[in-house]
Amino acid sequence: MLADQQFLRIPGPSPIPPSVHLAMGNTMIGHRDVEAKSLIEQLRPRLKPIFGTKEEVLILTGSGTAALEMAVVNAVEPGDEVLILVTGSFGDRFAKICQAYGINVHRLDMAWGEAIDTRIVETYLQQNPTLKAVFATYCETSTGVLNPVKELANVVRHHSEALFIVDGVSCVGAVPVQMDNWGIDILVTGSQKAFMLPAGLAFAAASARAWKRIEENNTPRFYLDMKKYRDNINNNTTPFTPALSLLFGLKQVLQLLEKEGLENVFARHKLMMQMTRSAFKAHHINLLTTDESASPTVTAVKPTDFQVEELRKTLKNEFHLSIAGGQQQLKGKIFRIGHMGYCSPADVLQTISIIEMALIRIGKPLELGKGVEAAQKTYLS
Amino acid sequence: MLADQQFLRIPGPSPIPPSVHLAMGNTMIGHRDVEAKSLIEQLRPRLKPIFGTKEEVLILTGSGTAALEMAVVNAVEPGDEVLILVTGSFGDRFAKICQAYGINVHRLDMAWGEAIDTRIVETYLQQNPTLKAVFATYCETSTGVLNPVKELANVVRHHSEALFIVDGVSCVGAVPVQMDNWGIDILVTGSQKAFMLPAGLAFAAASARAWKRIEENNTPRFYLDMKKYRDNINNNTTPFTPALSLLFGLKQVLQLLEKEGLENVFARHKLMMQMTRSAFKAHHINLLTTDESASPTVTAVKPTDFQVEELRKTLKNEFHLSIAGGQQQLKGKIFRIGHMGYCSPADVLQTISIIEMALIRIGKPLELGKGVEAAQKTYLS
Repeated sequence: MLADQQFLRIPGPSPIPPSVHLAMGNTMIGHRDVEAKSLIEQLRPRLKPIFGTKEEVLILTGSGTAALEMAVVNAVEPGDEVLILVTGSFGDRFAKICQAYGINVHRLDMAWGEAIDTRIVETYLQQNPTLKAVFATYCETSTGVLNPVKELANVVRHHSEALFIVDGVSCVGAVPVQMDNWGIDILVTGSQKAFMLPAGLAFAAASARAWKRIEENNTPRFYLDMKKYRDNINNNTTPFTPALSLLFGLKQVLQLLEKEGLENVFARHKLMMQMTRSAFKAHHINLLTTDESASPTVTAVKPTDFQVEELRKTLKNEFHLSIAGGQQQLKGKIFRIGHMGYCSPADVLQTISIIEMALIRIGKPLELGKGVEAAQKTYLS
Repeated sequence: MLADQQFLRIPGPSPIPPSVHLAMGNTMIGHRDVEAKSLIEQLRPRLKPIFGTKEEVLILTGSGTAALEMAVVNAVEPGDEVLILVTGSFGDRFAKICQAYGINVHRLDMAWGEAIDTRIVETYLQQNPTLKAVFATYCETSTGVLNPVKELANVVRHHSEALFIVDGVSCVGAVPVQMDNWGIDILVTGSQKAFMLPAGLAFAAASARAWKRIEENNTPRFYLDMKKYRDNINNNTTPFTPALSLLFGLKQVLQLLEKEGLENVFARHKLMMQMTRSAFKAHHINLLTTDESASPTVTAVKPTDFQVEELRKTLKNEFHLSIAGGQQQLKGKIFRIGHMGYCSPADVLQTISIIEMALIRIGKPLELGKGVEAAQKTYLS
């Protein structure tokens, strides 16, 4: 292998396109100068289609978790009852944030690797009419599940007055989302996944009825106060000095997404998911999720006859390929391959071919090329 | 002038050195991978001398205000009495954050442009023994004042049990600070000033007695919980995905600072301040602050016979030079020149020579070159 070449196939941070790297090298500007205002003015309308909303998409400087917390402290108050739909460690994070703020948390935990069952949610909502908000994770990064957010939004709207709040960190920009049409009240995401940027920016949008709650909400907050961000973005600025180099990059990211076309971006991610899954199926290596609940951005593999951490170590040390392991209860039991953002079907073929070689290295009997062949056929079909 | 050349002489964001731009273009890495751990391990000991502390300097992804809020929500609780020493808009921001959290705020407001009077603070502390914390701004960006933080720390230690919390955003890295020796309990700063990086990272360190309070503090917090950052940095990682491209840049920034030597960095900033001040004195244009209270990073000028905003407009439009105006009560009354981070005495000469030409353009009678001459003499003396 080539010493200076690293393959980043974890479910975020994802690789940065060369043109985005270059854009981030733009000369620094004053955050209150006309150049910054012009930049934000250009970004605003172009973020909306990615969220599927006519509302403003607020730009926050922080990690994805800052955006999750922003949703919590703006939408609900201490003592409020909320329902958290937990399908893995990021659903669990929503619960931890709510608990830190003294919010009365109801949890519905699915088995890790399974998607949220909308019928269970429907029943729960009918039995608990006092819920103020329902929190869900669109793509659960820890399991590779894409939850049925459209159906969930529908269920929440029909059986509850609760706000429906969605963590879209590891998929928005790679999968369809129609915030307004589906009825999502708050949707947040981060920059280091399908947005093809380094971590450091987060995004949040809220529905009209969410804004009403936000305005009435007395939870103490300052840096994460969504009202401040809205009032400022209406003047093409931010309440606090933003991560400008990432904003320069974001402009280029939007150009790339628009040039490819969002529908094509979504189709590419779906294809990469199908190629990845077909490869492991060809080798009879178990996948954690069903085809129906699989995310286009990350695939979790649950092998039975080789050690996950041994594979990861060989991939990293000999082949410079980073994939993720399991988190919490899945630690040592699964590995996760990110195929999002600046990643193509060709990259998937490369990833699979490297993994096949690494499996041979760690002593797993395997027909080399069989997974690649399956992925190629998936591509060509 | 050259169309593609912009001069950024506002008090932050400051210009990015070319080698730091290049470093930020490093290939993206996994935030839990060995490369990220190795990077953070290298950064940790090298941040400490800049803060003058043996404690860990925590790395947060966010704007400077996120670090101010981090200090507030970790050090004090709702209902606690705190004293805010306000010398301008950033002292005022500390007060606003505390008020948002239901903290009982005592304010001592100085006239904008004046430094904190330690004798007033001493008297106030003696009369108010129940204060839990005293907040001060080291460099008040809005006025160009450098507050006597060393003396204030001494006064707080001798007359109070309060924690002494300092906003160092627009000067740490450009001026001496001995957090441990002076007795500062929490010191925070941001990346876009003397750290020569884009905004997006913030830093915070706490004394042993501050950590005791932080551990006992029940204020709801999650993203800004200092305990999470400390527990993680001890394992060379961060609780949430960090702004990795800025961390790549930070490594290069530390190399630049170490190569120049911190004492030389501090001397350079002091010299740039003296050069800037001597230039305006030569033209008999008023400075907002006294020599004794002037900050080495930003100079505020308060002219009486020309319009500040007319000057700024001409500087920006004809000469591509950005300087800052006044904030709040000083809007339209002062202009502020940043001389921090990637800025040299030669840049100061250029800035002054451009300002002289712009003053002629807006009709102020002026002896061209006289300010430059004064600055040159200051440099040579």
